[in-house]
Amino acid sequence: MIGRTHHCGEVLEETIGQKVRLKGWVQTRRDLGQVIFIDLRDRSGIVQVVFQPEFSEEALAIADKVRSEYVIDVEGTVAARSEETINPKMKTGKIEVLIDKIEVLNKSKALPFQIEENVDTSEEIRLKYRYLDLRRPEMQETFKLRHNTTKLIRNFLDDNTFLEIETPMLTKSTPEGARDYLVPSRVQHGGFYALPQSPQIFKQLLMVSGFERYYQIVRCFRDEDLRADRQPEFTQVDIETSFMDKEDLLSMMETMMTKVLKEVKGIEVSTPFERLTYDEAMNRYGSDKPDTRFDMELVELSEIVKDCGLKVFKTAIENGGIVKGLNVKGAALKLSRKEIDDLAKFVAIYGAKGLAWLKVEEDGLKGPIAKFFTADEIDAMKAAFDAEIGDLLLFAADKKKVVFDSLGALRLKFAKEMDLIDKSKFNFLWVTEFPLLSYDEDEDRYVAEHHPFTRPVKEDEEFLTTAPEKVRAEAYDLVLNGYELGGGSQRIYERELQENMFKALGFSEEEARSQFGFLMDAFEYGTPPHGGIALGLDRLIMILAGRTNLRDTIAFPKTASASDLLTNAPSGVSEAQLKELNLSVIPKKEEKVKA
Amino acid sequence: MIGRTHHCGEVLEETIGQKVRLKGWVQTRRDLGQVIFIDLRDRSGIVQVVFQPEFSEEALAIADKVRSEYVIDVEGTVAARSEETINPKMKTGKIEVLIDKIEVLNKSKALPFQIEENVDTSEEIRLKYRYLDLRRPEMQETFKLRHNTTKLIRNFLDDNTFLEIETPMLTKSTPEGARDYLVPSRVQHGGFYALPQSPQIFKQLLMVSGFERYYQIVRCFRDEDLRADRQPEFTQVDIETSFMDKEDLLSMMETMMTKVLKEVKGIEVSTPFERLTYDEAMNRYGSDKPDTRFDMELVELSEIVKDCGLKVFKTAIENGGIVKGLNVKGAALKLSRKEIDDLAKFVAIYGAKGLAWLKVEEDGLKGPIAKFFTADEIDAMKAAFDAEIGDLLLFAADKKKVVFDSLGALRLKFAKEMDLIDKSKFNFLWVTEFPLLSYDEDEDRYVAEHHPFTRPVKEDEEFLTTAPEKVRAEAYDLVLNGYELGGGSQRIYERELQENMFKALGFSEEEARSQFGFLMDAFEYGTPPHGGIALGLDRLIMILAGRTNLRDTIAFPKTASASDLLTNAPSGVSEAQLKELNLSVIPKKEEKVKA
Repeated sequence: MIGRTHHCGEVLEETIGQKVRLKGWVQTRRDLGQVIFIDLRDRSGIVQVVFQPEFSEEALAIADKVRSEYVIDVEGTVAARSEETINPKMKTGKIEVLIDKIEVLNKSKALPFQIEENVDTSEEIRLKYRYLDLRRPEMQETFKLRHNTTKLIRNFLDDNTFLEIETPMLTKSTPEGARDYLVPSRVQHGGFYALPQSPQIFKQLLMVSGFERYYQIVRCFRDEDLRADRQPEFTQVDIETSFMDKEDLLSMMETMMTKVLKEVKGIEVSTPFERLTYDEAMNRYGSDKPDTRFDMELVELSEIVKDCGLKVFKTAIENGGIVKGLNVKGAALKLSRKEIDDLAKFVAIYGAKGLAWLKVEEDGLKGPIAKFFTADEIDAMKAAFDAEIGDLLLFAADKKKVVFDSLGALRLKFAKEMDLIDKSKFNFLWVTEFPLLSYDEDEDRYVAEHHPFTRPVKEDEEFLTTAPEKVRAEAYDLVLNGYELGGGSQRIYERELQENMFKALGFSEEEARSQFGFLMDAFEYGTPPHGGIALGLDRLIMILAGRTNLRDTIAFPKTASASDLLTNAPSGVSEAQLKELNLSVIPKKEEKVKA
Repeated sequence: MIGRTHHCGEVLEETIGQKVRLKGWVQTRRDLGQVIFIDLRDRSGIVQVVFQPEFSEEALAIADKVRSEYVIDVEGTVAARSEETINPKMKTGKIEVLIDKIEVLNKSKALPFQIEENVDTSEEIRLKYRYLDLRRPEMQETFKLRHNTTKLIRNFLDDNTFLEIETPMLTKSTPEGARDYLVPSRVQHGGFYALPQSPQIFKQLLMVSGFERYYQIVRCFRDEDLRADRQPEFTQVDIETSFMDKEDLLSMMETMMTKVLKEVKGIEVSTPFERLTYDEAMNRYGSDKPDTRFDMELVELSEIVKDCGLKVFKTAIENGGIVKGLNVKGAALKLSRKEIDDLAKFVAIYGAKGLAWLKVEEDGLKGPIAKFFTADEIDAMKAAFDAEIGDLLLFAADKKKVVFDSLGALRLKFAKEMDLIDKSKFNFLWVTEFPLLSYDEDEDRYVAEHHPFTRPVKEDEEFLTTAPEKVRAEAYDLVLNGYELGGGSQRIYERELQENMFKALGFSEEEARSQFGFLMDAFEYGTPPHGGIALGLDRLIMILAGRTNLRDTIAFPKTASASDLLTNAPSGVSEAQLKELNLSVIPKKEEKVKA
């Protein structure tokens, strides 16, 4: 160590008798009159340093003026603590350092909140003083974990002959996908760059270039309205390979993830990871990223109730919808009538017009809808639900999407409330055979479920122009504990297929050429078969660190309104800056009225 | 290897007799009627594969239709080449692969230029087809070198307990430094983010947070007019440390750079690196990033000529300027009168109003200005220049800056033209004691030579508010072969000193607070002494790869007008996108006239 001889956390028993020099922050200070104890903290940990007139009058006098979070530089001799003062909870708890020299490197005002775990200060204050919040031990640990995980992933990819290649941040805006962040050009009047939503096209071009195995841990940007697990800028582990089929890629990713779990968390994960097709995931869990740490699968009832006396069920099926159920084991007695009624409000978010239910009691199924079913139907339902006394049976009947979303969300809600999730589990899962396209009612056209470069499953290719909704994609999502950790696909590498894809997306030839002509041109010069994947690093760290908020894994995150409370970005800029960019801000409506 | 059994470059003698499967690009194809030879290329190298009716009629028929840059998948048996067909220039030159199965994975049109070293196609075409340009072996090598260098630097910093921590790309625009790229906010009307010119403030805040050792290999942005060695987005190795003084930091950087040179280039560089103060560098080389691979130092003449008969010399000194010379050894006979006169035009770029010269001939100094000097002055000049017969002596008399810039540029020009530079040398150099501030005549105020967070040299602190031009900075630039590889400094960590710095820069209290208040606030909560450095990765790679153009080290670079010829970024965006951002583009002047 330079300047200092040791880090605080390294002053252990074997240093007893040695002179040491330490630098760090005053964690706590106890003044017992003629002796002052300071817990000194640096990145490595905490050590107790002691000031007493016998060691140095002068040092004691200075220590007298020191306060919490002062930065100090001390020299002294390491001594064993007496038996009764040993602190078994501290790594350095068997020793203390008797100080004969101290220099105050910098002072500190009283802090707006204490540097300690599980601080209960509001997140707003913590973000404003992020530099203090990051001093908390759990934050320090999270960023060490992030560093180590990143390093591990890099090493794994390096060992597998991947080349790290950087791609541009100032790129071209394209109409597909999420909303771009734009960057005005000063040189080209009215021209804009876009910040990348992912390096997708560039990494494909690197495959055209023959690099064969590319990776990058790279910042990506999406100007979307934020949720708890979204940030306007996020980091992804971006991977692309040539000549590697889906099976090989998935297997390599499984090796990488098991290595991360083993080395970062000490947890053994078995391979191959479970796989579900998209259809299966939706039917069984009502989600394309199911949390498989608990069961409570959705129950298929359409066949059973298709002729039943309950009109909403019957109509739903007649209109092409489905009826599915969820058995909340043992909840019949736990939930009040009001709580059950509130569930209908909960599923209304997902478009459900109501939520039917039945309780399983000793003398049968009870509830407002019981009377609409025949004995046979009741028996069939009980069998399907595997119903036992005390169970609460919930029913959704609607279009597929509404049924899946409603019951999928209910499933997660009850798992949390009823504490069904084994938090020690790390359940990886591949979801495959996604639909290639989905119909967007707002835009009145098909949009790509992943992105327009995803390859259709070979035997579905013929439907691309005739029945696009039937086409499955050669795509795969990696799910961990109910979070989508990332996704990938095999890519289109033939001009004609790519042109058909753009046609299916409703692009005119001209639009396709002006936006993606360079990529389709590239496909004509010897493009190898290729595919890849991108994993969300922030989310992976969040799960590994046992957090539930992405902001805790990012050193300087943005709030839900995409602002930085520390620096106050975004903020106004000067007229001169705007003029150089040939831009003007359109006045707010209110301002117009005033003018 | 998955799918394939080997990479092309790996099919060596020990594989003779084995069945192999290879995938790659057709580099060349020679058709000798009943036998076709293909040089097959992948990332690892090239191997010769042979098609003949004896191995497979079917494969031969397919190979007949294959052309350059087709992507093929072949299977065959490795055989030794006959003695006379061995190619000692190829790694795989002792073997060939007798093919019995081939599949064409993708075709290729005729290329716009050939995939070969030292291609003479214009850079414009190469940038447009960048994906093909990147296939050239020298480009592939450059990006492997970049990958390896980056990895080496990461490993070194990891080993030295640095934590890689990511900082935001969407940050706050500040008035200091170069021009920011702006990113309009959709959420905050009229608000903008700025892309970072460097993570300077965030890395300092990470020191306030107690991370102690931070690094990041990070993209930075400057919206400046571009030169050959500038790009709008560039990558820097960004480092910051707490509790580490300048000497320790420089020594650590020297260890890192010697390691890079040793492992990447096999070159031993000795430490410690040479150091020059800024004043010494300017006086001896006319540059703050001198190329020390050759001598030709500037000669100080002011004292000798201060009373001479040549008015321009005398006046320059009387007005506070200087007179310096450059001895171009042996150039007197080589340069024509016209060539010497043209030198005056060359230095005019740097503001010089002329360029006096003398030739050293057997009977003394000859030239138009010879008559203005006394015999004593002539003798003193000859001694100062160490003049020998045949030397060409050049003189500049003006303000310091003009003299330094003119002679510094001439020194480099002659070194190149006369081939004085030993290209095998890697001369590292630290330039220290930069001025903290320089007076900007356009802005009529002092501006920071490095940035406003650079610490003044202790004994100069008192001049900060009284005589700012006198203050030296605790800053250090790392120079390699005449390129500024990076720069760093010890930072200000006290609120008062930072406030004084902003005062010296002409900030009002209000301006300082609104722009940098959060940083000054942070300084009051126990900020450790800290400092750091940032190295230009693109430039380092350029030097290591022996290139002279930064674009050759960046996969997808921008042109001098900051555009991407491949994707055509920047480009126009839709009215809807602009409207969401509350922006409108101010029409061009011509358009206004038309309207």
